Amino acid sequence: MPELRQDPATKQWVIIATERAKRPEDYSIDSEQVEHPDYSESCPFCPGNEAMTPPEEFAYRTNGTEADTEGWWVRVIPNKFAALVPDGDLGRIKENGFFRRMSGVGKHEVVIESPIHNATIETMDLRQIEEILLIYRDGFSKLSQDRRFQFVTIFRNHGKLAGTSLIHPHSQMIATPIVPLHIRHRLEEAMRYYDDNGECVFCGMLAEELEIQKRVVLETEDFVAFEPFASSAPFETWIMPKKHAATYGSISIDDAKKFAAVLSRIMKRIYIDLSDPDYNYMIHTAPFKDANENWYHWFIQIVPRLTMIAGFELGSRVFINTTPPEAAAEFLRQGI
Amino acid sequence: MPELRQDPATKQWVIIATERAKRPEDYSIDSEQVEHPDYSESCPFCPGNEAMTPPEEFAYRTNGTEADTEGWWVRVIPNKFAALVPDGDLGRIKENGFFRRMSGVGKHEVVIESPIHNATIETMDLRQIEEILLIYRDGFSKLSQDRRFQFVTIFRNHGKLAGTSLIHPHSQMIATPIVPLHIRHRLEEAMRYYDDNGECVFCGMLAEELEIQKRVVLETEDFVAFEPFASSAPFETWIMPKKHAATYGSISIDDAKKFAAVLSRIMKRIYIDLSDPDYNYMIHTAPFKDANENWYHWFIQIVPRLTMIAGFELGSRVFINTTPPEAAAEFLRQGI
Repeated sequence: MPELRQDPATKQWVIIATERAKRPEDYSIDSEQVEHPDYSESCPFCPGNEAMTPPEEFAYRTNGTEADTEGWWVRVIPNKFAALVPDGDLGRIKENGFFRRMSGVGKHEVVIESPIHNATIETMDLRQIEEILLIYRDGFSKLSQDRRFQFVTIFRNHGKLAGTSLIHPHSQMIATPIVPLHIRHRLEEAMRYYDDNGECVFCGMLAEELEIQKRVVLETEDFVAFEPFASSAPFETWIMPKKHAATYGSISIDDAKKFAAVLSRIMKRIYIDLSDPDYNYMIHTAPFKDANENWYHWFIQIVPRLTMIAGFELGSRVFINTTPPEAAAEFLRQGI
Repeated sequence: MPELRQDPATKQWVIIATERAKRPEDYSIDSEQVEHPDYSESCPFCPGNEAMTPPEEFAYRTNGTEADTEGWWVRVIPNKFAALVPDGDLGRIKENGFFRRMSGVGKHEVVIESPIHNATIETMDLRQIEEILLIYRDGFSKLSQDRRFQFVTIFRNHGKLAGTSLIHPHSQMIATPIVPLHIRHRLEEAMRYYDDNGECVFCGMLAEELEIQKRVVLETEDFVAFEPFASSAPFETWIMPKKHAATYGSISIDDAKKFAAVLSRIMKRIYIDLSDPDYNYMIHTAPFKDANENWYHWFIQIVPRLTMIAGFELGSRVFINTTPPEAAAEFLRQGI
C-alpha cells in the first residue's frame, strides 16, 4: 500500500510508492564510466589555467603564492556565466503597476574543490573535504557581510541530470537580495512549530529519528545522517548537526571537520552503492538576519537524481518516491 | 543585466538570466529523431492489446463495441504502476506522535490519447485533440464526485527528460485525498489578491498581458496563449481562458473545442521551433471544493524541458531561465 507522508518541518506531502518499491539495482542508472585524466589543458579550473577564469575572490593557497596563479588547493571565483551580478539597484520596478521586477543583483560564485581534474568528493581524502566545507563557511561569511544580500544557497551539481557537464569538481554559492518564497514558507512553518512546542522542529526530528532508529544511516557524537521520513527522492539523505544552529555560517572549524568526516562516509556510500549517480546537494540554512533564531536548523540535503521530475511533480510539487526511506537507510547502513 | 521577476499570482521569484540569453538553436537539444511504427504488437496501449492493461475506467468508443476491446479512440485506464490506490482509510496515522502519514488513497489514471502508436499531440488532427480535452473533463468530473478526493492533477509527460520513455501518446490524471501544499500556497496568494483588489489575479494578469502585448503568442476570442512574465523555464507557455472559471471541470464542450484549437497551434509551434523537445504540461485548476471561487482561474502550463533542474532550483525553488519570455514570445509568434 502506498503512503502519503508529510514532512513535519515543512508540511509538504510526498508519496511513498511502496507498490513499486525499488532497490538500487532497479534504477536504470546510466553507469557509463568514462575515465578522465587528472589534468586537462583546456579546463579553466585546472592549475596553470587560472587566467581562463575571472579573477579569484579568494583561495586557500600556499603562503607566498599570488592570486590567480598556481599554489591553491581550494579556489573561489565568480561564475563566468553568472545568474546574478554584483552591481545594480535594489529597488522594485513595476511594469504597468502590476508586474514586479528588480535588477538581478547578487553574487554567483564557483568553488573549485580541488586542483585535480578528475577528483571527486566521493573519493577525495578527508583533509580536502574539510577544506571545502571551511571555504563554504568563509564564502558564506563574506557574502553575509554584504548588506544587499539576504540569503545564500550553497549547492553542488554532479552529472548531467543534476545540471552540469563539467568534470572538474566544483560547487556553487549564489547570494540573493531576496529570501526565496520557498525558504520563507519553510521558515514560517518552523516558527509555527516553535510557537506550539517551544523547541526547534529539526531538533525534534533528530530526537525522533534517533529514538526510532529506522532511518538513521550514521550517527556520530555531533552529527546524524538519515533518510528523512518524507524523502522526496530515492536515497535522499540529510546530515544534520545535533547541536542547534540556524546558520551554516557559524560552524566552528572543529565542527566543520566533524561534518566532513560524516559527509565523506555518506558520499562514498552513495558513490559505491548507487554506481556514481548524478546528484545534487544543497546546504539549507537560515537567511542572514535569522542567523540566531531558535527555530531553524541548518543541514545538508543530498538528492541522487535517479528518477525524473515529471508533470505531476512540477504541477503539484508532491514528489513520488519509489524507495521507502527505511529501505534506503537499511541499504546504505550495510556498507557504513 | 539579469533580472529577478516575481510572479504576481504566486509571489515566486525567478531569475531571467539575460546575460546568457539563448535562442532556441542554442539549447543542446537532443534531436535524435527516431521513426516509430504506427502500431506495436508489444505496446499495451495499442488497439487489440486491451487485455494487457487493467480494465478500462471509460472510453470514447464506437457504439456497440465492448469495454476492453477495439473500437475506442480515447481510453482511460488505471495506471498499472499506480502511485496511489483507490482503497484504504483516510485517517492520519501518527508515528511517535511526531510524523504524520496516511494511506496512499487516490486514483492514478492513464489517458490513452489515440489508437495510433506514433501519433503525437503536436501533429494530431484537431478533432482528436478536442476528444482528449473532453475526456480530461469527463475524467475530472468523475473523480470530483468521489468524496474522498480533494484535488486532481492532469498532466502530460513527453520524452525521457520529462519523465516518460513510453512512445504511445498518453497523459495522466492523479486524484489526491489532500490539496498539495504548493497548491494551497497558490490559492492563499490568489485569495489575498482578491481581497485587496476585488478581482481574480489571473483575470488581471490576462488584461495586463493583452495591454502590454509583449508576451502574447496567440489571442483568440476566448483564449490567450502567452509566455508568463515570470517564466520559470525557456519557452514556458500558458494558455488561459478569458472568461473567469476556477475549475477545468466546468469547461463547456464548445469551450473545450476552442481550447483545443489554441493548444493544437501552440504545441505545433513548440514541436517545430524547438525540434520536438521533451516537455510537460499541467492543467492548473482549483480544488474540488473551490470550484466556484471568484479568485482562482484554470489554465494549462506547458514547460519544455530544455534545461536541467539543478541544485539551486531544488534548494531555493528559484528557477533560472535563460530565455526572456519576451524573446520567446517573439520567436513563437513568428510561426503562428
